Amino acid sequence: MDEVDKIIDDIRALRVQGARNVALAALRAVRIVADRSNDDLLRDNVKSVVIRLAKTRPTEPAMRDALTYVLRHLSSKEELLRAIDRYEDELRESETKIAEYGAHRIPDGGTIITHCHSTTAINVLRRAKELGKEFRVIVTETRPLYQGKLTAKDLLAAGIPVTYVVDSAAYLFMKDADLYITGSDAITSDGYVVNKIGTALMAAAAERFNVPYYVAASTLKYDPVTAAGYPELIEERDPSEVIDPSELPGAEIRNPAFDVTPPELVDGIISEIGIYSPQIFPAMVAQTKGVSDLEEVIALFRLAKERGK
Amino acid sequence: MDEVDKIIDDIRALRVQGARNVALAALRAVRIVADRSNDDLLRDNVKSVVIRLAKTRPTEPAMRDALTYVLRHLSSKEELLRAIDRYEDELRESETKIAEYGAHRIPDGGTIITHCHSTTAINVLRRAKELGKEFRVIVTETRPLYQGKLTAKDLLAAGIPVTYVVDSAAYLFMKDADLYITGSDAITSDGYVVNKIGTALMAAAAERFNVPYYVAASTLKYDPVTAAGYPELIEERDPSEVIDPSELPGAEIRNPAFDVTPPELVDGIISEIGIYSPQIFPAMVAQTKGVSDLEEVIALFRLAKERGK
Amino acid sequence: MDEVDKIIDDIRALRVQGARNVALAALRAVRIVADRSNDDLLRDNVKSVVIRLAKTRPTEPAMRDALTYVLRHLSSKEELLRAIDRYEDELRESETKIAEYGAHRIPDGGTIITHCHSTTAINVLRRAKELGKEFRVIVTETRPLYQGKLTAKDLLAAGIPVTYVVDSAAYLFMKDADLYITGSDAITSDGYVVNKIGTALMAAAAERFNVPYYVAASTLKYDPVTAAGYPELIEERDPSEVIDPSELPGAEIRNPAFDVTPPELVDGIISEIGIYSPQIFPAMVAQTKGVSDLEEVIALFRLAKERGK
Amino acid sequence: MDEVDKIIDDIRALRVQGARNVALAALRAVRIVADRSNDDLLRDNVKSVVIRLAKTRPTEPAMRDALTYVLRHLSSKEELLRAIDRYEDELRESETKIAEYGAHRIPDGGTIITHCHSTTAINVLRRAKELGKEFRVIVTETRPLYQGKLTAKDLLAAGIPVTYVVDSAAYLFMKDADLYITGSDAITSDGYVVNKIGTALMAAAAERFNVPYYVAASTLKYDPVTAAGYPELIEERDPSEVIDPSELPGAEIRNPAFDVTPPELVDGIISEIGIYSPQIFPAMVAQTKGVSDLEEVIALFRLAKERGK
Amino acid sequence: MDEVDKIIDDIRALRVQGARNVALAALRAVRIVADRSNDDLLRDNVKSVVIRLAKTRPTEPAMRDALTYVLRHLSSKEELLRAIDRYEDELRESETKIAEYGAHRIPDGGTIITHCHSTTAINVLRRAKELGKEFRVIVTETRPLYQGKLTAKDLLAAGIPVTYVVDSAAYLFMKDADLYITGSDAITSDGYVVNKIGTALMAAAAERFNVPYYVAASTLKYDPVTAAGYPELIEERDPSEVIDPSELPGAEIRNPAFDVTPPELVDGIISEIGIYSPQIFPAMVAQTKGVSDLEEVIALFRLAKERGK
Amino acid sequence: MDEVDKIIDDIRALRVQGARNVALAALRAVRIVADRSNDDLLRDNVKSVVIRLAKTRPTEPAMRDALTYVLRHLSSKEELLRAIDRYEDELRESETKIAEYGAHRIPDGGTIITHCHSTTAINVLRRAKELGKEFRVIVTETRPLYQGKLTAKDLLAAGIPVTYVVDSAAYLFMKDADLYITGSDAITSDGYVVNKIGTALMAAAAERFNVPYYVAASTLKYDPVTAAGYPELIEERDPSEVIDPSELPGAEIRNPAFDVTPPELVDGIISEIGIYSPQIFPAMVAQTKGVSDLEEVIALFRLAKERGK
Repeated sequence: MDEVDKIIDDIRALRVQGARNVALAALRAVRIVADRSNDDLLRDNVKSVVIRLAKTRPTEPAMRDALTYVLRHLSSKEELLRAIDRYEDELRESETKIAEYGAHRIPDGGTIITHCHSTTAINVLRRAKELGKEFRVIVTETRPLYQGKLTAKDLLAAGIPVTYVVDSAAYLFMKDADLYITGSDAITSDGYVVNKIGTALMAAAAERFNVPYYVAASTLKYDPVTAAGYPELIEERDPSEVIDPSELPGAEIRNPAFDVTPPELVDGIISEIGIYSPQIFPAMVAQTKGVSDLEEVIALFRLAKERGK
Repeated sequence: MDEVDKIIDDIRALRVQGARNVALAALRAVRIVADRSNDDLLRDNVKSVVIRLAKTRPTEPAMRDALTYVLRHLSSKEELLRAIDRYEDELRESETKIAEYGAHRIPDGGTIITHCHSTTAINVLRRAKELGKEFRVIVTETRPLYQGKLTAKDLLAAGIPVTYVVDSAAYLFMKDADLYITGSDAITSDGYVVNKIGTALMAAAAERFNVPYYVAASTLKYDPVTAAGYPELIEERDPSEVIDPSELPGAEIRNPAFDVTPPELVDGIISEIGIYSPQIFPAMVAQTKGVSDLEEVIALFRLAKERGK
Repeated sequence: MDEVDKIIDDIRALRVQGARNVALAALRAVRIVADRSNDDLLRDNVKSVVIRLAKTRPTEPAMRDALTYVLRHLSSKEELLRAIDRYEDELRESETKIAEYGAHRIPDGGTIITHCHSTTAINVLRRAKELGKEFRVIVTETRPLYQGKLTAKDLLAAGIPVTYVVDSAAYLFMKDADLYITGSDAITSDGYVVNKIGTALMAAAAERFNVPYYVAASTLKYDPVTAAGYPELIEERDPSEVIDPSELPGAEIRNPAFDVTPPELVDGIISEIGIYSPQIFPAMVAQTKGVSDLEEVIALFRLAKERGK
Repeated sequence: MDEVDKIIDDIRALRVQGARNVALAALRAVRIVADRSNDDLLRDNVKSVVIRLAKTRPTEPAMRDALTYVLRHLSSKEELLRAIDRYEDELRESETKIAEYGAHRIPDGGTIITHCHSTTAINVLRRAKELGKEFRVIVTETRPLYQGKLTAKDLLAAGIPVTYVVDSAAYLFMKDADLYITGSDAITSDGYVVNKIGTALMAAAAERFNVPYYVAASTLKYDPVTAAGYPELIEERDPSEVIDPSELPGAEIRNPAFDVTPPELVDGIISEIGIYSPQIFPAMVAQTKGVSDLEEVIALFRLAKERGK
Repeated sequence: MDEVDKIIDDIRALRVQGARNVALAALRAVRIVADRSNDDLLRDNVKSVVIRLAKTRPTEPAMRDALTYVLRHLSSKEELLRAIDRYEDELRESETKIAEYGAHRIPDGGTIITHCHSTTAINVLRRAKELGKEFRVIVTETRPLYQGKLTAKDLLAAGIPVTYVVDSAAYLFMKDADLYITGSDAITSDGYVVNKIGTALMAAAAERFNVPYYVAASTLKYDPVTAAGYPELIEERDPSEVIDPSELPGAEIRNPAFDVTPPELVDGIISEIGIYSPQIFPAMVAQTKGVSDLEEVIALFRLAKERGK
Repeated sequence: MDEVDKIIDDIRALRVQGARNVALAALRAVRIVADRSNDDLLRDNVKSVVIRLAKTRPTEPAMRDALTYVLRHLSSKEELLRAIDRYEDELRESETKIAEYGAHRIPDGGTIITHCHSTTAINVLRRAKELGKEFRVIVTETRPLYQGKLTAKDLLAAGIPVTYVVDSAAYLFMKDADLYITGSDAITSDGYVVNKIGTALMAAAAERFNVPYYVAASTLKYDPVTAAGYPELIEERDPSEVIDPSELPGAEIRNPAFDVTPPELVDGIISEIGIYSPQIFPAMVAQTKGVSDLEEVIALFRLAKERGK
């Protein structure tokens, strides 16, 4: 199989995991195509692979971010390759920057609460530990898949004290917390944060105790098609993750993977371009990464959602 | 073993379960002692068994309610026995009344959300169904012990449609709910509701969507020693209910059984004496069941907490 | 026609208007029946007329209040007649007391906002004017029936300056108001206030500006059957009061007469027994007027709702 | 009369209605003047007609938007004409884009509530219907001029089910709504939305039920002079629209046309450049339409407000 | 001078300080008059001294409480003297009970914040210390008279660690507090708490952080004339307590002594009859101390406010 | 001493006061160094003086703003000097613009409340007075250093009526205020306002009464290193400013100079680039003053914090 076909196939088959890795793989495919093209054919060839890539994961904001970036740098092969280099560099640095910026916000001697498992959020806490801060993290188990266990293990391995509780204990423990932190699956144009089911529930509790809630998330997570009104779809997963349906014959079992936290419950997004209110995130992304043409983004998104290969 | 000793032993060993049953068993013991006493010895004999009973479960409000009631009716053997008859009658009727009153509040065609397993709350829903109302109930699984499964089964058996979800899905489903209902383990003098861990978390979500929250609870659940500042103790249960501690060596695992919902998040207590705001509950209880002498209640509570038999 | 039949007929045919007048007419009928009965027959005769009266207006709290009061004073003819005298006296004085108590709360030099037309609320404002206070009243027109016009006329006649606005201007004018006052059609056991459509909308605006909201209402307006969960029914009136339906063929036109304000939006009920938080109203009514047996109230209410004469 | 004079006269005499049409008419006048000028005189001639146009409607943000745009593109006749072409194109497309973006946010099977009559908001609803979504719209009559009737007719004509109610019923119906949508007359630099009287009242009710409130508005509605502290003036219209003053002799009758909704009550502005939080609107407008020089905008605004022709 | 005249004079001249002491002194005067009277003259003699006493401090709720109590027990000399004995006993015990009940609410290892100087609140903290609890108290200096200094000294003397800050630091320190506690000068029928200027400001900050606010106050502080609408008057003290007016010629200097905290900011009143929500306080006082006739209380209050001796 | 050394020394020794003056002095030093350098040495020489300047006041945002501006304009000597001219011009105009923009927001006939002493806020009020507006200003004394006295004097000198109160009276007077205005020491990337201790406390009170809170502050006050998570440090000043420690032996006396107001309590920043929500401030600053490279800002900040000269 052609190398490009292989990459596309790997992304589609979920053999590539994580927003960053998906974006990097997509760029690798574009780079190969660009390398093979001369300036005359560049535009057509790249657009063609961009569409094929877009179709692999039509609802992944990171994919959209990488591909619209590519479409903004097609004036010449040289420019495109330089742009891809730059994008990759920034991607590599972004995890480090988020960890560094976020670590400054972790209060020394404080208590942090987190939900689910986010490498980006954990990196913030690890970096804070490296900077010599002492703090304890309340970790919720995160039913139905217990990602909290992974989080607890990662933190313990980093020497950070952990208190492990069921999800519904969040209210009781929130009153002693100094900061609530999570990752994010997507951020909308009007500042809503899509993340693992339970995130918004805990954010509502955090607000009652005036505990600040920060989201550690790369600008990749900003999803520009939400500016055109397209809602983030809440994935509904297999009910048997929650309970063996035969235990409750006749019951409807629901297993939505995400909930959506409104911006008034979020104090800031910790991103590689800085820490800003969620409402302002699209403006800051545009200022540092360039203003995308919204109609172009929509067009790509629509193409991606069309059926067929 | 003497019949009275047996009852006392059964209560202490948790062979008697449920607030109502504990109160009825305690009264049975008092009745036996009263039957055996003449008017001269009544006071001393009854007080003595009251203290022994109080010591079996020093933190159970229903026990306290029954025993302080007894202490208010010691003028004669005849009066005491009549008072016990009356108390037992009322206890028997209270479950029915709560179900009836609460059922009127269940909106026909509506969606209800509940947490954990409360016979009293389920009776309300069953009675509403008997009255011909159609509604669906969102049931949260209630980690760590999955009491939500029991609730789901009870409701399905009564022909009530059930949607079963993880606890942390409460925010997502709350926005479509018309009413949030739970039982209660204890109600304090300043209107706080002690109930299964997660209750307050969901109440905070209910408030954001202006979903009314009603607590189905007998007046037995009102705990007068809270008026003297004694806090309801939050039982901390075995960590292994949450996770096998060997899976997370080094982690602190916490398993509190209850949380405490403040009165501003509770719209009403559905009790056998009517539906009232939680703040007003102590006043209504006193109006219909008689004003207890707070110092007397405290004295009994303190005696109960003393060590030894 | 018999005098008693005549009274019953007048009440049923809405020839008697206003909560107070309905209660007084019902008592007049009871008094006649009592006068005609000896002590032996009193109980049966009075109960019989009570049921006939109850059926005339099954949803009128004032009627229920008067009749359950009668049922609490049936030990002898003499006691009943004295009780009726007392009730009538109190009813006569209650309007004056509410006006007096409420008037003390009207801020001199202030701005008041009111909605719809309530004689009780207007009496409060009139009395404040008599006490020498200067203030302006914002009056909302109260669509669809423009009861605001009546209110404006009553206030102008009392020499009180009036600003007349459409209902939807309430937000804009609320920020300059010092107090929001209305009457009430019914008050529930958990402190909700049923009043003319728009009352709750304006109460929500008042809360944003921290403008206190007081309800001028006799204890007659407390509806004890709500303690048993019976909801206040929101009367749906003729759509043609809103618009000639032929103007909007195909549209659903809705004309609910009332909305329901939750207790957290109400700062106090100004009643003849004093000014209290809405949550506490049932306790204060019971303390000064006697504790009703809830099951007795329900029984009367159910009888009243049964069909037939 | 000269064609330019005619246009200016038509705008001033309100023969041109609607923000978009006013902006287009003003550009038509500028285009004529530009066509008649060579590059040397372009600047002076255009500035002169800009000032005359600005004076016709000193408080219309759309007018200001068009004219400050013109002032930013005066480097040459060719550039100006091309810029005007672009502006007109965008204006034409903006209605379509807002309808499309907004339509994605309309929940299928949901209930929408709206106030007053806004072509932009109605287009959103019409487009959602075209996309196959089923929903009902609660329409408030919008006293005193009953623009709700127009809205109801437009929606019915598009096959959208309508429920028509008085304005003050908004609280009662809000609890069943999934979305509140209106147009806007102006949006300030700190995110306040100026719209028909009653809009803010309903937004306060929407917040209590956590119903999202979206404003459908072109970027034309952003008024940059508010960044210099100039408040939007609330037009006070003829009292006789509210009531025949002879009906209430002595009463002050007030008829403000607008109220102002604070940004914390608004979830998003649906504009042709995307859906964003109201706080961020000035940043997004500047990013896509160019940063205006605030002092230049003020200067134009002040000239416009000066007396004389 | 007669002993009764002396007592009356001492009260009037503020030689008797503190709500409790004023009440006790008034009862002493009544007792002397009762001792000198036979049953025939008792009523007239006592009423006469009651009116003289009432006039000494017309705005002191504790005085009103003692005197209306006296008026409720005039059936015989013997009953009156017994009643006075009982009242004095309860008064003596009330301070102890409040301290005991409140102490149970002080969290071991916690941080408390208080404002101004209240012996009752300090007794609560002292008793908690005696019970072996460890905690720190943030004390605000309480401008203009620095009563915080007294509070700090009292606490330090009791071995309780103190952090002393300016009043305006309350927001910053509130986020680390577990409980906010003050005394009270008066409590109204609708649950408002009148206390030293700044109390409400800090209560608003406490609410933002969900820090519970408890008021330590004897039932003496409940002022029943507020049920008749009479507002608590906010004493305006000498401006020179704030600043030497010559330092700011032309400035208005205001020095109100109190502010008024609304019940939604108060979690409970810690009184000798138990800990209850502020809204419910009048009901609980009536239940344990007897229902006063509101008109009688008003009559006494009015007499007290009349001029002359 | 060299002129540059002298400037640096004056800044370090706090002989230069006020954010604007510090920035101007720093630019003067840079200008001198630039004048002495040719284009070859410019970069190195300027960077060297920039670092020396940065070290004088590592926590002063205005200093950072000026120096990062310098670092963005180092392409040539000519460009740098022109840039400095422009910066100085803008700085000079900024005070005037803020005063002008803010003055438009001051309501004629209204009541303003302010805290501490801010020249920028006072200029807004003075300018409003010059524009002919009549209003009264509530001035809080601002313990411990009584900067309110200065504010009162400045306002009285400008002919503006002043009411002078203790800090803790803010709640009582807030309900009659139309606007709350202060200056600011720093504004963070997520919209928090750092200002004199007490500012946040009063902002919380303002919110309860829906009184808008505006901050008058130059864009100099925006501190970009907060985008990298560096918190604003709250200076802790000498305890003896609060009280002579010998008066309270054993007490901890705390004297933090600032508190931090969250953006949801701030309605707008009145700056020289316009009036915007605090959340959006970093976006607007970047749009008008250029996007800084965050890593460059951090590097400068870190250098500044390193020890040594």
